Amino acid sequence: MSNQDIERLKNLLGTHVDFPQKGIVFKDIFPIFQDPTAVEAMVCNIVHHINSTYSEKIDAVVGLDARGFLLGPIIALRLGAAFVPVRKQGKLPGECVQATYVKEYGEDVFEMQKNALKEGHRVIVIDDLIATGGSAEAAGELIKKCNAKTVEYVFIIELDFLNGAKTLDAPVYSLIHL
Amino acid sequence: MSNQDIERLKNLLGTHVDFPQKGIVFKDIFPIFQDPTAVEAMVCNIVHHINSTYSEKIDAVVGLDARGFLLGPIIALRLGAAFVPVRKQGKLPGECVQATYVKEYGEDVFEMQKNALKEGHRVIVIDDLIATGGSAEAAGELIKKCNAKTVEYVFIIELDFLNGAKTLDAPVYSLIHL
Repeated sequence: MSNQDIERLKNLLGTHVDFPQKGIVFKDIFPIFQDPTAVEAMVCNIVHHINSTYSEKIDAVVGLDARGFLLGPIIALRLGAAFVPVRKQGKLPGECVQATYVKEYGEDVFEMQKNALKEGHRVIVIDDLIATGGSAEAAGELIKKCNAKTVEYVFIIELDFLNGAKTLDAPVYSLIHL
Repeated sequence: MSNQDIERLKNLLGTHVDFPQKGIVFKDIFPIFQDPTAVEAMVCNIVHHINSTYSEKIDAVVGLDARGFLLGPIIALRLGAAFVPVRKQGKLPGECVQATYVKEYGEDVFEMQKNALKEGHRVIVIDDLIATGGSAEAAGELIKKCNAKTVEYVFIIELDFLNGAKTLDAPVYSLIHL
């Protein structure tokens, strides 16, 4: 992505101090989605990156509830791949695999439908933002439990100072570094 | 959409008895998203329907968290429109408008960012399923509070026997009727 395009995306981001709680500076991606040309720029960039980096076909895009659902299905459609959701425990029907995501206080259980990925499937994980990497790591664990392979983790925003990318088992590609 | 295409979508739906609670037969749309040709068929059908029914430009597509995020941004992109989210109270930063959605037990508060829609904007609301219509009605209320106009409500699945469409202030377009 050109520096100019990245600056444009950065300028569209909303910044909210002390949201959702005191001490957190929240970066809001929704203003980007107000501008279809900006969404198209993100999608084209991600799809071009994947197609030019990996010669073998991507079988599935795994998106995390809820903001991973925003770009996940668009990217999957352009790659001719399946879109597969990861949601918190109890939200998905049928037999699921589970992974625990340890947060600052307590933990969450993430689920993926067991038959959503086949053995050997090549998978891209997508979410809006990587902070410490905990939720992406849990998604990677779910993919492993289906005997599939995470090829890459893709984010709109990466918070570099938290080093979340280092915790993951595949390369990370992020459009905006903060 | 041809009867053959509708039957194909219906056959892809998952059916889960007693999920998420006893007495409910849950229709799972995620198996449709495993097949990119089925997603493309849905998107093309909805976009063609909107473009052939309404001559004035659609300014925004409003999608309900979380399953309205699956098709909302794709439809918005193809229409050259903004995508605007509706989420439960506390999830969206900045100044929001609110609407209360009364459920069987208790109520939920939905929010939309106040500056996301401009006065007079023509809006499509999208969600995965309409049952009694309560959550779509709340989305319509949020749109009214921004002095914008709901042009149509679009769903993948409509549960005809619950008559939810009758509670809404604009036409309803659903791909699958159950």
